[in-house]
Amino acid sequence: MRMICRGLVAALGLTTAIAATAQTPNRGELAAAVKAGHAANVQALQDWIKLPTIAAEKLNVVEGAEHMRRLALDAGFQQATVVQTSGVPGVFATLDAGARDCIGLYFMYDVKQFDAAEWSSPPLEARIVDRSGEGKAIVGRGAVNQKGPEIAFLAALKAFKATGRKLPVNVVLVAEGEEEIGSPNFKQVIANPAVLPALKQCIGVFIPGAGQSSTGSASVELGAKGIVELQLIASGEKWGRGPSKDVHSSLMASVDSPAWRLVKALGTLVKDDGHTPAVAGWFEHVKPLTARQKTLIAEAAAKDNEADVMKGLGLKKWIADEDFTTAMQRLASQPTINIQGLVSGYMGPGGKTVLPGRAEAKIDLRLVPDMTREDAVAKLKAHLVQHGYPDIEVNVSGGYDPTQTEEDSLLVRTQKAVLERAGVAFSVEPRAAGSWPGVVFTGAPLNLPAGGFGIGRGSGAHAPNEWYLIESANPKIAGLDESAMFYVDYLYEVAAAAKRGR
Amino acid sequence: MRMICRGLVAALGLTTAIAATAQTPNRGELAAAVKAGHAANVQALQDWIKLPTIAAEKLNVVEGAEHMRRLALDAGFQQATVVQTSGVPGVFATLDAGARDCIGLYFMYDVKQFDAAEWSSPPLEARIVDRSGEGKAIVGRGAVNQKGPEIAFLAALKAFKATGRKLPVNVVLVAEGEEEIGSPNFKQVIANPAVLPALKQCIGVFIPGAGQSSTGSASVELGAKGIVELQLIASGEKWGRGPSKDVHSSLMASVDSPAWRLVKALGTLVKDDGHTPAVAGWFEHVKPLTARQKTLIAEAAAKDNEADVMKGLGLKKWIADEDFTTAMQRLASQPTINIQGLVSGYMGPGGKTVLPGRAEAKIDLRLVPDMTREDAVAKLKAHLVQHGYPDIEVNVSGGYDPTQTEEDSLLVRTQKAVLERAGVAFSVEPRAAGSWPGVVFTGAPLNLPAGGFGIGRGSGAHAPNEWYLIESANPKIAGLDESAMFYVDYLYEVAAAAKRGR
Repeated sequence: MRMICRGLVAALGLTTAIAATAQTPNRGELAAAVKAGHAANVQALQDWIKLPTIAAEKLNVVEGAEHMRRLALDAGFQQATVVQTSGVPGVFATLDAGARDCIGLYFMYDVKQFDAAEWSSPPLEARIVDRSGEGKAIVGRGAVNQKGPEIAFLAALKAFKATGRKLPVNVVLVAEGEEEIGSPNFKQVIANPAVLPALKQCIGVFIPGAGQSSTGSASVELGAKGIVELQLIASGEKWGRGPSKDVHSSLMASVDSPAWRLVKALGTLVKDDGHTPAVAGWFEHVKPLTARQKTLIAEAAAKDNEADVMKGLGLKKWIADEDFTTAMQRLASQPTINIQGLVSGYMGPGGKTVLPGRAEAKIDLRLVPDMTREDAVAKLKAHLVQHGYPDIEVNVSGGYDPTQTEEDSLLVRTQKAVLERAGVAFSVEPRAAGSWPGVVFTGAPLNLPAGGFGIGRGSGAHAPNEWYLIESANPKIAGLDESAMFYVDYLYEVAAAAKRGR
Repeated sequence: MRMICRGLVAALGLTTAIAATAQTPNRGELAAAVKAGHAANVQALQDWIKLPTIAAEKLNVVEGAEHMRRLALDAGFQQATVVQTSGVPGVFATLDAGARDCIGLYFMYDVKQFDAAEWSSPPLEARIVDRSGEGKAIVGRGAVNQKGPEIAFLAALKAFKATGRKLPVNVVLVAEGEEEIGSPNFKQVIANPAVLPALKQCIGVFIPGAGQSSTGSASVELGAKGIVELQLIASGEKWGRGPSKDVHSSLMASVDSPAWRLVKALGTLVKDDGHTPAVAGWFEHVKPLTARQKTLIAEAAAKDNEADVMKGLGLKKWIADEDFTTAMQRLASQPTINIQGLVSGYMGPGGKTVLPGRAEAKIDLRLVPDMTREDAVAKLKAHLVQHGYPDIEVNVSGGYDPTQTEEDSLLVRTQKAVLERAGVAFSVEPRAAGSWPGVVFTGAPLNLPAGGFGIGRGSGAHAPNEWYLIESANPKIAGLDESAMFYVDYLYEVAAAAKRGR
């Protein structure tokens, strides 16, 4: 998840290639080590893609955690441990460089489901392909979301290891294997008595990301919406009306229909515009955008190419025919109730004369500050009861609250500084419409700044033919090696800024 | 289709085994021939089940027609021809016995789709199993709907052939291979210049059916609802709003949703009871049940076991908590708009964060006299336009008008007579809630009586573990041989009644 909005922002007026910062000692030596490790790093990414962890399918949840642990040790973490939860395990690793300051890293090692038939290159083969005008890319599930950028960060650490150099900051890594199902157990990893004190030492936490658009612009992310994933299920069994199984469709005259019941219940959840949440009290805790947030979004929209964005989405109009800036402000500010999927009865070609005994809507709720997962679910359930649908099952499968970080935090200031020094144009993004469980860091008890961060490029998260650029044909856009060196520079930036006064 | 209502009716007070009628000459000889042919007839049914024609999947449409043609020739039809249509072909066969009168036969040789994983015996293996208390049955897709009963009728013809006896009436057979998708091209078979004049000679047309309930009662069917099968599709492509493909679900804040659009459009089609059609003018041509029809339904309901019926359907309550008689009268009298299935976006386990570019509802409309398919579809389309959904695609995949036959027609009178002579209790069923394309016979230009007819027993049409009884443990219920002899008796009944004055 997480890449929406970020990927929509493109830059103008960028004229120089990604520059080295003056702050990084021994940069040539480290860059040579990154280059020397290139083939091994690409291979590591390919091997990782070949081992997909898919929490929804309980696929490789144990193997994925163990693989993550080994990757951390290989990159120079002195210790790495699999942390058990009541669900999919997490991984905790520490790299103590004897430095004064510490940066937190968040990785996800799970990926979204895929349908191999929709891919032009097999999703688990991680083939290297030429992308016209872009360079060499790896195609595979998880390539950009999030294994590619994570390998780039590990490549930075490996350069220190290869050259025998000490990192300027200590690093704490927490990784999870169920981000794609809404991180139902990740809080347990954070709360682990070994993990929590280590994270408390950090100036903030970030997840590596390939944040560059086609023109090379990047973004600094200040927050993201929360999410609740749930299924609404109508069934004869729970309802006590209608059939307990699929029956012949001619019975519709005298038998109640769970499918119609679901349709009618769903119909009460959004207004007739098919969009605006109609659940009572849904907007009670919604904080409007600040003037600064609106300005930042308008600035980003002004730099972006609306036509390209719409083309990429197969879209002719934003809702209510809004202009781009308004649509982007809406994207950041509005909570949503989305139908991910509908499942009932016969779903093959043509028709089949059944009256289904069960119907399911797969839903996600996106939450903005100060909404909470708990309150949103409670309001949804109350709404269904109030509208006469107490039998509709609300099966919450995951989710978390929104996350927000202050623009003047040390984490964000150092991110801006290293992008400026690297000559990478960027926008400050007040809030991604996508979601990530940053609230485990930005919320109590840690209350740390947190966000996604990085350069490099890729696309297709959750879609067929997901890709991540490893060798860039455009000097303004980072490949794997440039991304790794950017993280090297960033670690020095954090150390220097922290020294100047945190 | 077609078996609903019929299967709901059970008899009381039946004390004798199925009796021979006095009207059938050489009955012992013919019965011996049926018995001698038993193994071959069972084998023929098994072979037929192993060759499923599924029009929705274009499976065995050519092979199925050719097989039907050979079955007809084997049974004694002097000619049998595959009749091409613009879709799945039909079969036309004639057996000229030199008799004065003629009876029409309608066969379907296609079957409904199946999911083998749901079956306890493989759906195409046609295994013979013991059904506790019932006897030996063949389990397989098409066993009762409609290959078993059709084989029983062919077995009757083969007995005449084996004994060198002439049939007392001529027989005209028309068969189709796309009944399960709403017979989109069957009118072309009827209209064929070789077929139409032959059918015009007949006193009526019937399709063999295994119409006995668990207590042995049968039914005489006077009509059936019409049907329209269609898919309602909302898509970004047709709408000009929302995405043309599945996109990331976080975009819901600024991008219109075809899935919500479908839900909202569907919501206008039935009232908030989730049941009553709300399309403008839907009831304009609906003829209420006559007093005689109501009485017939009440009589049938009084003889049936409501608890067994509800248990079979997994049902605790009829709609509006109606009593059995009212529910059965509603079943016969009310037109319906049923959701067969819902298809959109992600449909696997758990959730997936997409905003689907397309959503589809599979719908069937059941029509009662004097509704027509054409008028119903026109009203549905007008309704969608009027409610602001002109972009919702209405993809009609098949259907036909309702069918109705007079109770005092020669066809029905002879059916009643042979049932009475055989000592089989029966109900007269004014209108089946299920559908069959009888209107091609009862409507212009033929205007013939037509309906389903037969004894024997089976169940599970359109469901897993469909079965047809070949050897009955209950003397009041026919197996394959008794069903065949019943058709022998019926042919003599028709000849005698026609002779007495048609």
